[in-house]
Amino acid sequence: MRDLLEAWADIEAVDHHCHPLWRFTRPVTAADLRMLFTEALDGAMARHVPSTAVYRDALRRIAQELDCAPTEEAVLRERKGREPAAHAEALLRRSRTGTMLLDHGFASSETFSIAEHAEAIPVQQREIVRLEVLAERRLGGVRSVDEWFAAVRSSLRQAAEAGAAGVKTIAAYRAGLRLRRHAAGETAADFMRLKERAQRGEPVRLSGAPLVHGLLFEAALECRDQGLPLQVHCGFGDPDEDLAEASPLGLRPLFTDPLYEGLKVVLLHCYPFHREAAYLCAVFEGVHMDLSLTLPIAGLDGGRAMREALGLAPWSKLLYASDASRLPEYFLVAAAVHREALAAAFQELVERRVLTQDEAIDAGSRVLAGNARELYRLSG
Amino acid sequence: MRDLLEAWADIEAVDHHCHPLWRFTRPVTAADLRMLFTEALDGAMARHVPSTAVYRDALRRIAQELDCAPTEEAVLRERKGREPAAHAEALLRRSRTGTMLLDHGFASSETFSIAEHAEAIPVQQREIVRLEVLAERRLGGVRSVDEWFAAVRSSLRQAAEAGAAGVKTIAAYRAGLRLRRHAAGETAADFMRLKERAQRGEPVRLSGAPLVHGLLFEAALECRDQGLPLQVHCGFGDPDEDLAEASPLGLRPLFTDPLYEGLKVVLLHCYPFHREAAYLCAVFEGVHMDLSLTLPIAGLDGGRAMREALGLAPWSKLLYASDASRLPEYFLVAAAVHREALAAAFQELVERRVLTQDEAIDAGSRVLAGNARELYRLSG
Amino acid sequence: MRDLLEAWADIEAVDHHCHPLWRFTRPVTAADLRMLFTEALDGAMARHVPSTAVYRDALRRIAQELDCAPTEEAVLRERKGREPAAHAEALLRRSRTGTMLLDHGFASSETFSIAEHAEAIPVQQREIVRLEVLAERRLGGVRSVDEWFAAVRSSLRQAAEAGAAGVKTIAAYRAGLRLRRHAAGETAADFMRLKERAQRGEPVRLSGAPLVHGLLFEAALECRDQGLPLQVHCGFGDPDEDLAEASPLGLRPLFTDPLYEGLKVVLLHCYPFHREAAYLCAVFEGVHMDLSLTLPIAGLDGGRAMREALGLAPWSKLLYASDASRLPEYFLVAAAVHREALAAAFQELVERRVLTQDEAIDAGSRVLAGNARELYRLSG
Repeated sequence: MRDLLEAWADIEAVDHHCHPLWRFTRPVTAADLRMLFTEALDGAMARHVPSTAVYRDALRRIAQELDCAPTEEAVLRERKGREPAAHAEALLRRSRTGTMLLDHGFASSETFSIAEHAEAIPVQQREIVRLEVLAERRLGGVRSVDEWFAAVRSSLRQAAEAGAAGVKTIAAYRAGLRLRRHAAGETAADFMRLKERAQRGEPVRLSGAPLVHGLLFEAALECRDQGLPLQVHCGFGDPDEDLAEASPLGLRPLFTDPLYEGLKVVLLHCYPFHREAAYLCAVFEGVHMDLSLTLPIAGLDGGRAMREALGLAPWSKLLYASDASRLPEYFLVAAAVHREALAAAFQELVERRVLTQDEAIDAGSRVLAGNARELYRLSG
Repeated sequence: MRDLLEAWADIEAVDHHCHPLWRFTRPVTAADLRMLFTEALDGAMARHVPSTAVYRDALRRIAQELDCAPTEEAVLRERKGREPAAHAEALLRRSRTGTMLLDHGFASSETFSIAEHAEAIPVQQREIVRLEVLAERRLGGVRSVDEWFAAVRSSLRQAAEAGAAGVKTIAAYRAGLRLRRHAAGETAADFMRLKERAQRGEPVRLSGAPLVHGLLFEAALECRDQGLPLQVHCGFGDPDEDLAEASPLGLRPLFTDPLYEGLKVVLLHCYPFHREAAYLCAVFEGVHMDLSLTLPIAGLDGGRAMREALGLAPWSKLLYASDASRLPEYFLVAAAVHREALAAAFQELVERRVLTQDEAIDAGSRVLAGNARELYRLSG
Repeated sequence: MRDLLEAWADIEAVDHHCHPLWRFTRPVTAADLRMLFTEALDGAMARHVPSTAVYRDALRRIAQELDCAPTEEAVLRERKGREPAAHAEALLRRSRTGTMLLDHGFASSETFSIAEHAEAIPVQQREIVRLEVLAERRLGGVRSVDEWFAAVRSSLRQAAEAGAAGVKTIAAYRAGLRLRRHAAGETAADFMRLKERAQRGEPVRLSGAPLVHGLLFEAALECRDQGLPLQVHCGFGDPDEDLAEASPLGLRPLFTDPLYEGLKVVLLHCYPFHREAAYLCAVFEGVHMDLSLTLPIAGLDGGRAMREALGLAPWSKLLYASDASRLPEYFLVAAAVHREALAAAFQELVERRVLTQDEAIDAGSRVLAGNARELYRLSG
């Protein structure tokens, strides 16, 4: 395993799914650090986070990097004493992230804007458009659901022309992933309700299967036309989502309907449906997957998920991502954990004589960078 | 692993979910022994039980304790030659069970009553109220579903005052766990049918989603008010249950509806949905879990389930239980298997440098006793 | 593990679920070889197949047998230079297949017919009747759905008398496995549509839950009466099937309705629902399972699935099968991978002191041949 990690040490990974950092001026507390390494949103969970494998492991890795004791206090003291930009740059360099495909859709007022992020973080960056956020912004000036769909598609085209690398949907959060076509009347009625809220100046949150799935089907057509990979949040995430509705198997219409021929879909996270995701990668040419959130959030079980996924999934379909956000510490930890899980999984293939060491090195380098370069048509 | 087991040797576990023993006068046959270590109810399965990992392992452990050959004949002969109370006491002592939280709801005429059990078994005991059994007993004297719900809540309050440690629901068996609100008319109609059966003196078995889920929602409110943890049978069990309907993910309304804020829920057994259960523990503060029936019934896969569950679940949310019933042999076997699985899982965390040995010892002691003491507000 | 494999070396396995070979005259290309070891139907997947564990492993095993380099070119060159019948016989001999239970339902014009296969392949053969194919052929001359069901049952009786060993259903592909009773009117209407297609001479493909489930319920009655095991495709397969609908848990009515008492059901493939399948084997006397397609298609995860399945499943319920088709290379690879997975799983039981080495040898020999001999009432 060490040998594989060393062989990949020089590979600058393509992190095909991550989020912007907080502005460097934002103070960081122990609670921030704890809530960084959990999908819980409830602050009351902070007392349980130190009793998780992910957090213990993260503290140890960060402390090693900062050369301090593996405690919250030491880590927070040490990072406070450093110049924030240099600290972030050092940790990102250690994460060996060569390219970030950034989803800014989850950003808050505390995070860098797109322009600021590009300026502040010395890593090559491309944008991933978050579909639902874009669609909520395009409600103004449209009078019908069809006009709205057309406006969204037009925006996606513009985004592609402006250099966006892909599109991401969080339909799992807004309506679940059991995709189906809804009656036009149902979709129209939901649209009018949403539109009226927007007109009254109320906060607008796109949700419900008729609109969310309808939008997803439309966006999939545009992604197909533009050659933009469509990233789909699958499997676990924060508790806004009903995990029972988040299996990637529900996306089947995107894979079997000839309408979507040529569409590239990337299943994000996937756990605990990673065996199902791997199956989809094995039988549908356009399907790819990652275990981004699974590593490191699922602790040591993330590594098992990697080995399980490599049962059915071709490694030419597997992508590297951190799903990191907010603090550079997450990039550091996610990168280390992900590379180790990858090395352990490929080492198993070497030990079982499925691959030679050289083949394993090559396969891993594709997962870390090559597959994403090809899929997202990145240069370099 | 040996080191962890030795470090925990003196811990008297809180078995937060177990059932009463058979009266000592009941003779025990080979068929009894076989059917003890399976969830099958069909006696025809007895011929397959010796071809399971759980039974082979159980026989070996019992034989070692009785100092005889690991065969049914030797074990039955040896236990027959011993004084039943002393035999039970010896095995329970070896199981290092300090406190039993007992669900008497599954008891038959062959099992000790609550009072008899407390008298016969020299282990501290508290009661877990089985919701559906209590509710079936409260049909007399109530005229409407609302009166019935009120009567059940009143009984739960009385039980709490009388020292019950928690409430358990077997909704998984009676209606599945895809909880939803049903129309009042539907619930009322089902109630009238049940009530009429009771009035005609026919055997009454509460079932069907409108009543079972309605009752569960009501009981959850009372549990919240009384600070009583609500145990929910999840995952596999005997074949009365449709496993496809037994995922803990279906309990989502209990975790997201603000009505139930403060409610403590304990997911029992969970296999093969233990990764899903661990996820719920990771994102909802009030959720806890155990793998009680999984260990030892799922053979060596129970140990894998433990390692998988410790991926997402904080160990501050994980509880020890045997789900034992009928014979002290089950307590012995379940305790040994459970402790070994726990040791193997924490040993993995030590080996991967997530925890120090001392931290692993502490974490395990919390699972074995501390977490339950806190959750059920046990003294000592 | 080596010891177990050696102990089983002389066992001629009963391959209780496989398919006929291609005629020896059919040329074999690299694309054929690749598409043999994947469930993908889309030829575009061929470029991903070399990036799978299953294909790398298969190439290496075949090359070792042919004494050539582990590359497609070398393997194809080498097999081309051999006399096809002798080549097939050599590989089948190495697979140690003593008996084939053959499902001819998936055959094309390129495969041997039943008679040709029996003639060409020097291995004992029995037929497994594919239910849906038989039913499609019995549409002529029947006027109602009841007549059709009766005709199918009559054909099943004849097949049993003619020596068929069992019946197989691919309801998973045609309607999913969430079995339920449909209204007679619905079934009749679907039947009339199907019948009209047949009368117009159009191609007939039985599908839709009312007909497919109705037929399955009828066939189950006949299988029960004839003592014919009913094989059910469960879990993953080619992309015609919606995996979300293919869990064996949906078959519950066959296990709980007293109508089917005595029916023997064999769950095929099962992955990723093998833990669920193992549960069904553990609680319902008539249920058996295999991991035929899982080994070797799921790569190294197939071996993990075997260990997981042996958690709950009695090994007296576990069967060996290759699910091989088309080329003798598949029989060779599937047999080797399956035996190794079995050896690793039982070795784990030996190491954990659940079984002695001798007991493990005996258990494995039952999986490889004994269980199937008993279940299918094979002589020898």
